Amino acid sequence: MSASVTSNLTLRQILAPVAGDIEQIDDVLRSITTIDYPLVQQGMEAIIAAGGKRLRPAILFLAAKFNTYDLERLLPMSAAIELLHTATLVHDDTIDRALMRRGLPTLNTFLDEGTTVLAGDYLFAKSAVLSTMGGVQRATRIFAEALVAICEGELEQKFASKHLHTSIERYYKRIYSKTAALFAAAAEIGAVLSDAPEDQVRSLRQYGRQIGMAFQVIDDILDMQATSQELGKPSGADLRQGTVTLPTIIYLETASNSEREGVRTVVEGESRHDGLASEILARISASGALESAYQVARKFAAEAKETLAGFPDMPERKALLDLADFAVERTF
Amino acid sequence: MSASVTSNLTLRQILAPVAGDIEQIDDVLRSITTIDYPLVQQGMEAIIAAGGKRLRPAILFLAAKFNTYDLERLLPMSAAIELLHTATLVHDDTIDRALMRRGLPTLNTFLDEGTTVLAGDYLFAKSAVLSTMGGVQRATRIFAEALVAICEGELEQKFASKHLHTSIERYYKRIYSKTAALFAAAAEIGAVLSDAPEDQVRSLRQYGRQIGMAFQVIDDILDMQATSQELGKPSGADLRQGTVTLPTIIYLETASNSEREGVRTVVEGESRHDGLASEILARISASGALESAYQVARKFAAEAKETLAGFPDMPERKALLDLADFAVERTF
Repeated sequence: MSASVTSNLTLRQILAPVAGDIEQIDDVLRSITTIDYPLVQQGMEAIIAAGGKRLRPAILFLAAKFNTYDLERLLPMSAAIELLHTATLVHDDTIDRALMRRGLPTLNTFLDEGTTVLAGDYLFAKSAVLSTMGGVQRATRIFAEALVAICEGELEQKFASKHLHTSIERYYKRIYSKTAALFAAAAEIGAVLSDAPEDQVRSLRQYGRQIGMAFQVIDDILDMQATSQELGKPSGADLRQGTVTLPTIIYLETASNSEREGVRTVVEGESRHDGLASEILARISASGALESAYQVARKFAAEAKETLAGFPDMPERKALLDLADFAVERTF
Repeated sequence: MSASVTSNLTLRQILAPVAGDIEQIDDVLRSITTIDYPLVQQGMEAIIAAGGKRLRPAILFLAAKFNTYDLERLLPMSAAIELLHTATLVHDDTIDRALMRRGLPTLNTFLDEGTTVLAGDYLFAKSAVLSTMGGVQRATRIFAEALVAICEGELEQKFASKHLHTSIERYYKRIYSKTAALFAAAAEIGAVLSDAPEDQVRSLRQYGRQIGMAFQVIDDILDMQATSQELGKPSGADLRQGTVTLPTIIYLETASNSEREGVRTVVEGESRHDGLASEILARISASGALESAYQVARKFAAEAKETLAGFPDMPERKALLDLADFAVERTF
């Protein structure tokens, strides 16, 4: 746990240039998600309070600092992005029937499935309203297109699930949709709302995309590496529910036939095969596949940093560079 | 069936001033909802092709005819509204676990629940993108706020379900959210995108709201009155699944204690109580409650028509007036 706490402080230090603005997101989210149904209200408040790292709004704010920084314009859109992220987590948990997220009970634990779907829809809807409040149609459109990418990614993950053969290209496409698309949108929207020149808009979008890819690769590594306590959910959950991620893809490249069949049994299986899954997770770990996956994440982070080469040497540039390192070095 | 066919022709006649523009909606919808997964693609194409009456786009187009009619601006937004309507039907069917809609199989019949939720999300997302393509932020915001109202209505319906005591006020609030909000948005957006003066924007929004209320009251009456064949789903489905609508509310006002207990058994019951439900449906019909509900629908339609009193005497005004009559007179 001490490692987590250290990283946590570090993240706070990295995001210092926009810390005050990030805090305001919570107020916006609380004010916009008030509904008549105490049970749903309570659940949504808990989700919002549980928070998460507020990385996407942070990136939006930082990306806007290189040009005209107008908080009033930026705030609704940052809140929209965080809320959209939250809504996707609610639907993810519904679809996975997950009972825990970030160590806290999900909406599924006290609402039936239909209500959880509707609660997710409601958060989507509220995020869409927020996205129209910055007054710039182009930003709203980037936001909506990120939503489409996320939905495509969810469908892709659903259909790819329980299939052993996932190419690296399909994996990249899936994690782009699942994670990088919204990071890319956050950075691009920050650029657009600050009236950045078009080359900066492109660079910042690319920054967001690559750091998002790094984040998701690390998430997929941590899913295998971290303990249940650190994750707030069972370790190796992806593999156990049939989702093949980068470490498994790398492991399969050099696996023997019998090792491959073991993975297939877990991935395609209906039951959990807990013993076999644990054995395979240990083998993946011993094979060096996690380290190879780390290399991939480092490459994405390095590419993110490169996009900022021509940017002025400001604290916000340093924050974005540090964030790319954090994406790879974090342990939670 | 002959009555349906006659009404159908009549609706086509009513919408003649915008028939060509309505046809283009289908092309936009087909072009925007292409995804990689044949099963989902096929399902979505079927839903879109099954169509429905395209009433919301028709109202948007008609509302825009009084000022600057720019089809390029109007088309993406009309398609967005129709697609949003379709997305809500998909999630409705998921939540109700319905297998039939408009006499055709729903997505539930060949996709699992998680995939259907995601398919609905995807349609929501695509509708959000379309809603940003008219180039007018105010219109996008009206659209997003209608989405919020719809989600609130769904939650309300979910929570009100299986409760006998539904006040008329709650019922009106629920059908506003469920149906009238999107009709109101369609008319208001048509007005806004045609640069209508603000008093016309308000009148057209009110027109949309009141015709939407009339439509939903009639839907709720037809759910009890029409045959299964006409509905494409079982007759009396609302009551059978615990949703109390206007005819039942009116019936309960003068019902005896034993009649009230009968309704309670069906509404609060877990099983279908098919025999008892059929008996109660017959009693509601015999009590005159359906006719009283018709009066309410006629009042809403009349109020819709009154909002157009000051509008120029154009074919489009006549179409909107005829549409209000159609809302009440239709038998399907």
